[in-house]
Amino acid sequence: MKIRQQIYNLIDENQNNNKADAFVHYFISALIIINVIALFLESYENINTKYKTLFWYIEIFSIIIFSIEYLIRIWTADLEYKDVKPYKARLKYIFSFMGIIDLLSVVPFYLPYFIKIDLRVIRVLRLFRLLRLLKLNRHSNSLKLILQVFKRTKSDILITVFIVSLLLILSATLMYNIENAAQPEAFANIGEALWWAVATLTTVGYGDIYPITGIGKILSGVIALLGIGIVALPTGIISSAYIEEIQYNREKTKKSSEEQCLCPHCGKDIKK
Amino acid sequence: MKIRQQIYNLIDENQNNNKADAFVHYFISALIIINVIALFLESYENINTKYKTLFWYIEIFSIIIFSIEYLIRIWTADLEYKDVKPYKARLKYIFSFMGIIDLLSVVPFYLPYFIKIDLRVIRVLRLFRLLRLLKLNRHSNSLKLILQVFKRTKSDILITVFIVSLLLILSATLMYNIENAAQPEAFANIGEALWWAVATLTTVGYGDIYPITGIGKILSGVIALLGIGIVALPTGIISSAYIEEIQYNREKTKKSSEEQCLCPHCGKDIKK
Amino acid sequence: MKIRQQIYNLIDENQNNNKADAFVHYFISALIIINVIALFLESYENINTKYKTLFWYIEIFSIIIFSIEYLIRIWTADLEYKDVKPYKARLKYIFSFMGIIDLLSVVPFYLPYFIKIDLRVIRVLRLFRLLRLLKLNRHSNSLKLILQVFKRTKSDILITVFIVSLLLILSATLMYNIENAAQPEAFANIGEALWWAVATLTTVGYGDIYPITGIGKILSGVIALLGIGIVALPTGIISSAYIEEIQYNREKTKKSSEEQCLCPHCGKDIKK
Amino acid sequence: MKIRQQIYNLIDENQNNNKADAFVHYFISALIIINVIALFLESYENINTKYKTLFWYIEIFSIIIFSIEYLIRIWTADLEYKDVKPYKARLKYIFSFMGIIDLLSVVPFYLPYFIKIDLRVIRVLRLFRLLRLLKLNRHSNSLKLILQVFKRTKSDILITVFIVSLLLILSATLMYNIENAAQPEAFANIGEALWWAVATLTTVGYGDIYPITGIGKILSGVIALLGIGIVALPTGIISSAYIEEIQYNREKTKKSSEEQCLCPHCGKDIKK
Repeated sequence: MKIRQQIYNLIDENQNNNKADAFVHYFISALIIINVIALFLESYENINTKYKTLFWYIEIFSIIIFSIEYLIRIWTADLEYKDVKPYKARLKYIFSFMGIIDLLSVVPFYLPYFIKIDLRVIRVLRLFRLLRLLKLNRHSNSLKLILQVFKRTKSDILITVFIVSLLLILSATLMYNIENAAQPEAFANIGEALWWAVATLTTVGYGDIYPITGIGKILSGVIALLGIGIVALPTGIISSAYIEEIQYNREKTKKSSEEQCLCPHCGKDIKK
Repeated sequence: MKIRQQIYNLIDENQNNNKADAFVHYFISALIIINVIALFLESYENINTKYKTLFWYIEIFSIIIFSIEYLIRIWTADLEYKDVKPYKARLKYIFSFMGIIDLLSVVPFYLPYFIKIDLRVIRVLRLFRLLRLLKLNRHSNSLKLILQVFKRTKSDILITVFIVSLLLILSATLMYNIENAAQPEAFANIGEALWWAVATLTTVGYGDIYPITGIGKILSGVIALLGIGIVALPTGIISSAYIEEIQYNREKTKKSSEEQCLCPHCGKDIKK
Repeated sequence: MKIRQQIYNLIDENQNNNKADAFVHYFISALIIINVIALFLESYENINTKYKTLFWYIEIFSIIIFSIEYLIRIWTADLEYKDVKPYKARLKYIFSFMGIIDLLSVVPFYLPYFIKIDLRVIRVLRLFRLLRLLKLNRHSNSLKLILQVFKRTKSDILITVFIVSLLLILSATLMYNIENAAQPEAFANIGEALWWAVATLTTVGYGDIYPITGIGKILSGVIALLGIGIVALPTGIISSAYIEEIQYNREKTKKSSEEQCLCPHCGKDIKK
Repeated sequence: MKIRQQIYNLIDENQNNNKADAFVHYFISALIIINVIALFLESYENINTKYKTLFWYIEIFSIIIFSIEYLIRIWTADLEYKDVKPYKARLKYIFSFMGIIDLLSVVPFYLPYFIKIDLRVIRVLRLFRLLRLLKLNRHSNSLKLILQVFKRTKSDILITVFIVSLLLILSATLMYNIENAAQPEAFANIGEALWWAVATLTTVGYGDIYPITGIGKILSGVIALLGIGIVALPTGIISSAYIEEIQYNREKTKKSSEEQCLCPHCGKDIKK
């Protein structure tokens, strides 16, 4: 087996056949989690001043590893996507969702060496490293099922989002007109009223903004009660899609184990 | 094709066959959204003073378009409702839900020219324009499914509303009698207690009003825990209705597809 | 038809055959709602002082009507419960759930004339009148379905209540030990900690009591996240029971319309 | 029957055949509940000083009973686990979940007599006694069903926990970077931002920490709205698992009842 194939096998998450494969997998995963913890701890001022050098070494080490991983993935992209030409496979990986995440998690480090850039922007760009967390559970069947459920219910959920948006806009605009006179500070504009509407409809209720007039309280109560229905709607949609998906998967398993289904006219399998 | 038919096709949302139809559809939709954004931005005092003339032009332009659209819809109503006589079709549109929304979104502009009316009332009337948002997604299948689910569960949901109302009245009246002595300001009357009850049962919990006596806290805890059941009830109702509706639709599709069964490879009917 | 039978028909909610029956039904319903509104408005001090005499007349009038209704129900109880002896039928009504509610809604008025009693106690006893609201929707099919669902899931819901209680006690006791040193006022005893636990697990979160120590915040976060599962559990139980109940009802209708099922040994119908 | 077998029957919760068995069962249950109430009341300073001796007697009495119960359970472990050798059965009980709970609820009392230990640690260790509450409902069928549902959906729920964690980390890190400049106290580090994220995503919303900048409020609104989906996901999973489990159980019952079918009137098998 060629060395390139062997290296590809090491970083390919789909197959962890031998100890080396598993080691690379767990090593990358551990490094992602260490990066998240470091990002977390760096935000504590006293920890940051005390362990600044440690965080710097973790940064350098992670960047080296992630950069190497990124280059290897480009180099071995033709083994990942075997059905297209090598150079197309590389472009396919680079512009794939995971490829972009891989790039975004290393590029903010190199940027200041090439272009002049605000340090605050760098700090925000470094947050893209968090997206690497998405890679941790990529091959879970449960995650695939959940994604399948969301894909199946996409249009229903979009409509729910539309209904929620409508409700938010209507109640915010109404509340602004009701409460503005009594609380010109809190309900200064529809933007603030929208902040109240979200906090009420989702039942978060921080308590920083709420109606004080009688009619405002009645409207707020109605919105809060509608909030219950708003929770019920996506729950019903997702519940039913879940049941659907599980029953569909079971029936598919059943059917494929029963028999093939051939067309009497052309002799081909209809299911394929 | 007569000119009147062509104009009707332009504004008819059910059929967007050619580019002109689609343009009119997207133009009206965009105008609705621009109106909502304008209404939103006008509430910011500094933006309103700066761009007063722009908002005025948007207002005039929208009113002209919406007025023309309204008149066209009346004029072509007999093409929408073909089974009734022309004058009846016009009345049918005028008193339909969408017809009333269309009227309400233009009429507040013309009112001050005919009758003396308070400017504050005009401002509230202008909010009817928000209802035009309801027109944006009128032909979505998901929205139809959700409306079907709500229609199917109407009596169950009404009973839930009744149970919730009962619970609110009972707990508010009890809490008023419990907390009034300890907090004569906060729980001044049953109205205020009802405001507390809604905030607790829906789990919003702004924190502007809550019990401080021992027995009040126990009652509040029980109400909050019942709030969980109150979320569970409509969710269960809607979930089951959703599953029902989907299964019903599938069986209907199944039956109609049983009559003819085409092979995806050769396109012939297998049953023949 | 005897006069007693006619009077029974008037107050029997199961059959509203003629206009007189319907009138009595709506009259009693309206009176219940008027009583609730009066109770509500009386709690507003200024309204109470202004309309004291009106409230007094409503009170007198309601008590007379409800008392007459109660006596008629006792008198005609043997027509309601036909399968037992007349005096037993009367006792059956008096000690039935609805009979007790009917008594409790009139008896607080007469009490002060017979025994010395604190006026505050009378005020609380008058709240029993609210229970009459339960009579408004007694014959709704949806309410029967919901009650059926709760009956079916009783043991599952009791276990949920047990799990919730366990979680509340565990987290309250833990939080008391964690936060007592930092906030000796707020977390003065486990009772206060329990108040916090309920507000957190039900996601009400008034904001009058919350942890300030690091470990307390972590525990609070875990409890709040478990709160999501706590909502999911009864929702799942009720959803599945709802689906069960609807499918059961449909199958029952189907079966009874198909055929009887006789035992070949004794010839009786098995289903009965 | 040997005395050891008789004693085992007394403490075995699976069989409460005679009055003595039931008495022991209810006595132990009552003692567990009394211990919880005592722990609860002890936290009230005035009650604790007044009834210190009573609490001490309850403590001594409970420790004696629980210790005896623990020793009996070790002694009769070979009757509980009949398929392994006696000494192995004892080890099996000692290291079983319930065995560890039984030990943990008595051992904190004896510890100070053997080793030097902080009194605060003892107080925390005493909380393990609360775990005895878990023994109260051990044999409920509903609890078994719920545990079965959680076991079945374990991997789905773990993925939900993963998604929630991801969302919490992402939103906390983002919010820290957004709000830190405006509120350096409240959003001092990502830990505090995480506290905000949990309170928002679970819709608890204590109101001790919330965004004040425009962009922070928008992010907060998005997180709160996603919180609705986060409730919908586990609810959908648990609902579908519940329906699955109930249908599975019914089919199992159906199959076993298909083998013989008794007439409820004459008691004979219909199939014969």
